[in-house]
Amino acid sequence: MTLVNHRFTLAARPVGLPSPTDFQHGEAPVREPAAGELLIKNRYISLDPAMRGWMNDARSYVPPIKLGEVFRALAIGEVVTSNGAPLAPGDHVVGLFGVQEYATVAAKEATKIPPIAPLPVFLSTLGMPGFTAYFGLLDIGRPQAGETVVVSGAAGAVGAVVGQIAKIKGCRAVGIAGGAEKCAYLRALGFDAAIDYKAGDLGAALREHCPSGIDVYFDNVGGETLDAALARLAMRARIVICGAISQYNATGKMAGPANYLSLLVHRASMTGMVVMDYAARYPEAIAEMAGWMAAGKLTSKEHIVRGLAEFPRALNMLFAGENHGKLILEV
Amino acid sequence: MTLVNHRFTLAARPVGLPSPTDFQHGEAPVREPAAGELLIKNRYISLDPAMRGWMNDARSYVPPIKLGEVFRALAIGEVVTSNGAPLAPGDHVVGLFGVQEYATVAAKEATKIPPIAPLPVFLSTLGMPGFTAYFGLLDIGRPQAGETVVVSGAAGAVGAVVGQIAKIKGCRAVGIAGGAEKCAYLRALGFDAAIDYKAGDLGAALREHCPSGIDVYFDNVGGETLDAALARLAMRARIVICGAISQYNATGKMAGPANYLSLLVHRASMTGMVVMDYAARYPEAIAEMAGWMAAGKLTSKEHIVRGLAEFPRALNMLFAGENHGKLILEV
Repeated sequence: MTLVNHRFTLAARPVGLPSPTDFQHGEAPVREPAAGELLIKNRYISLDPAMRGWMNDARSYVPPIKLGEVFRALAIGEVVTSNGAPLAPGDHVVGLFGVQEYATVAAKEATKIPPIAPLPVFLSTLGMPGFTAYFGLLDIGRPQAGETVVVSGAAGAVGAVVGQIAKIKGCRAVGIAGGAEKCAYLRALGFDAAIDYKAGDLGAALREHCPSGIDVYFDNVGGETLDAALARLAMRARIVICGAISQYNATGKMAGPANYLSLLVHRASMTGMVVMDYAARYPEAIAEMAGWMAAGKLTSKEHIVRGLAEFPRALNMLFAGENHGKLILEV
Repeated sequence: MTLVNHRFTLAARPVGLPSPTDFQHGEAPVREPAAGELLIKNRYISLDPAMRGWMNDARSYVPPIKLGEVFRALAIGEVVTSNGAPLAPGDHVVGLFGVQEYATVAAKEATKIPPIAPLPVFLSTLGMPGFTAYFGLLDIGRPQAGETVVVSGAAGAVGAVVGQIAKIKGCRAVGIAGGAEKCAYLRALGFDAAIDYKAGDLGAALREHCPSGIDVYFDNVGGETLDAALARLAMRARIVICGAISQYNATGKMAGPANYLSLLVHRASMTGMVVMDYAARYPEAIAEMAGWMAAGKLTSKEHIVRGLAEFPRALNMLFAGENHGKLILEV
C-alpha cells in the first residue's frame, strides 16, 4: 500500500498579508514509519497567528519554515501504524504534524490525548492557546483578587481564556475585541466589560471601564491598542507581551509603543512570554482547566473550517479577525 | 534684617529645548522661618534631566512646576536659622530647596548630611543619581556575576555609577556615551568597553562588545539606543527604564521602541523605576557606596558650574551632553 499525502508547503515568503501563491498545495507519497516511528492521520490542524512569523526569514524563538518544507502546524491525529512505538493504532495524539493529511514522526514527537474532552479542545483551551493564557496570566501577570485585567484579542483563543481565568481569580475582566458580535460573546463568557475597538475612542473606553486603571494587561495585538493600555496603567502594573497580531503583516518599520515611559511613571513592567517554556507544566494546566470546564466556569469555543484545501484562506481569517473562537482546520 | 533672595521661577512651558525666556530670574524677600522651620542658604543645586519633565503640564510621578513658582530642584545648603527645629546653624542639609539662594522650609523637608564626603557628592554618588543607579541596577536589573550589563548615558551621574557597580558585582560593563573623551573616561573608570554612539553603527558595536548578548540594559536615553539594545538581548534579559533623555525635548509624537517584540523572543522584561520609591533604603545605599568609595572601587565625579545666574544655560548642557559627571550649580 502506498498512501498519497496531500500537503501544503511554503512556496514563497510573503510581504504583508500572505497570498495564495505563497503556499504550494501538492501531493507526495506517505513515508512508512521506521522503527520507533508512527504514521499519523491528521484530523484537526491548529491555525495560529504565530504561523505568520514562521513564514519570515527572521530570527525568532523557533527557526523559520524553509521554502519547500511542509508548513509547520500543531495538529491532532490518529495513529494509523505504530512501528514498535509505545502507542497503538487508534490512539489520538497531538504534535507538530504539519499542514498535511499524514505525518510520519518519531514516537517522542507525539503526545497521547486523554479522552476527557472533544479532540479540538486539545488545540484550544486544553492546548497551546489555553496554556498561553494560563501561564501568561498567572505566572507573569500575577493578578490579585480585585484587580483589573485587560486583554486584547479577547475573543480569540487565548484572550477568551485569559478573561475567564481572571474572573475565576476574582478580578475585573475587560476584553478588547473587534465588532459588536464578539463583544456580546465576551459578555456572555462573563467578562465585566467588552470594548469594541472598531467603535470609537479606545482610550476613552478604557478610562470608563477601568476606573482604577489597568493592573494586568495581556497583549495579543500590539500597535495602538498597546499604546492605549499603556496610557491607562495602574501603579505597579504588569504587561504580558504574548503577541502583536496587528503588526505581523506590517511591511514598514514596526511601530513601537510610544507610551512606553508610562512604565516608568507607574513603576510597571512589560514581559515577553513564550508558552513552550512551560512545557513541563502543561499537565498542571490541563488538570486545573479541565476541572474549571467540568465545573462550568470555563468555556472553550472552537471555530472549525472544513477541508485541508481551505488552509490559505482560513489562515488569513486570523488577520482579518474573522474567527470566533480558536480557529481549527478539519482535515 | 531682611535678606534678598535671588531665584528662578518658571516663566513659560517650553516647546522642545528650554529657552532663556522660559525662566524668570528675579528677587524676593526671604521669608523668616516660622516655628519648626529652617532658613537655609543654598550652596549646591542639582541639575537633572528630570527637571525638563517638570516643566511640562503633564501627568507624571510628581506634579509639574506651576508657572511663577520657584523652579523645583534638589539642593544642599547650610542652616542659617533654626526656629525650634532639631537642626542647628551650620548644619549641612539636603532637600528640595529650589533654584534660589535661600529657602525657608519645614525641618522635616531637610535631611542632615553626615561629614563623610565633600558636599557635592551628596547630590551625586551619595545622592539621588547614586541611589538611582544602586537600586535600579541591583533591585530591578539583578545582575549576576559573569553577565553583561550595558548602560546608556554612561558618562552621566547615574550611568557611571551603574557601570562601576556592575564591575563590583563581577559583570562585564559596557557603556554607551557620546564622544571619544567620555568613552576614555568610562574606560578609566574600569568599564570593559565604551561605545561612542556618535561614531558609527551602534548595533554593530553592541554585537562586538556583547558577544553573549545583553543580560541587563539600564536605559537613560530611550530612542534609537533603546532599540539597538533590544535587538541584542540575551535570553531572560532585564531592561531597567530609568529615563529617556533623547526624547524629553521631542515636540512630535515620541518614538516608541520598535524592537519591543524582542522582549517576547527573549522572554525579557522592561521595568520602570523611580528612585523615590526606595527612600526608606537610602541609608543602606549610602553606607554601601561610601564603603566602596573608601575602598577605591567607586569614583564619584561632579561637573560644577558656578553662579546661580548660569542656571538656564547649565540646564541645557544636560541635553547637549556637555557635562562630564554629575552636573551641579554652585550658588
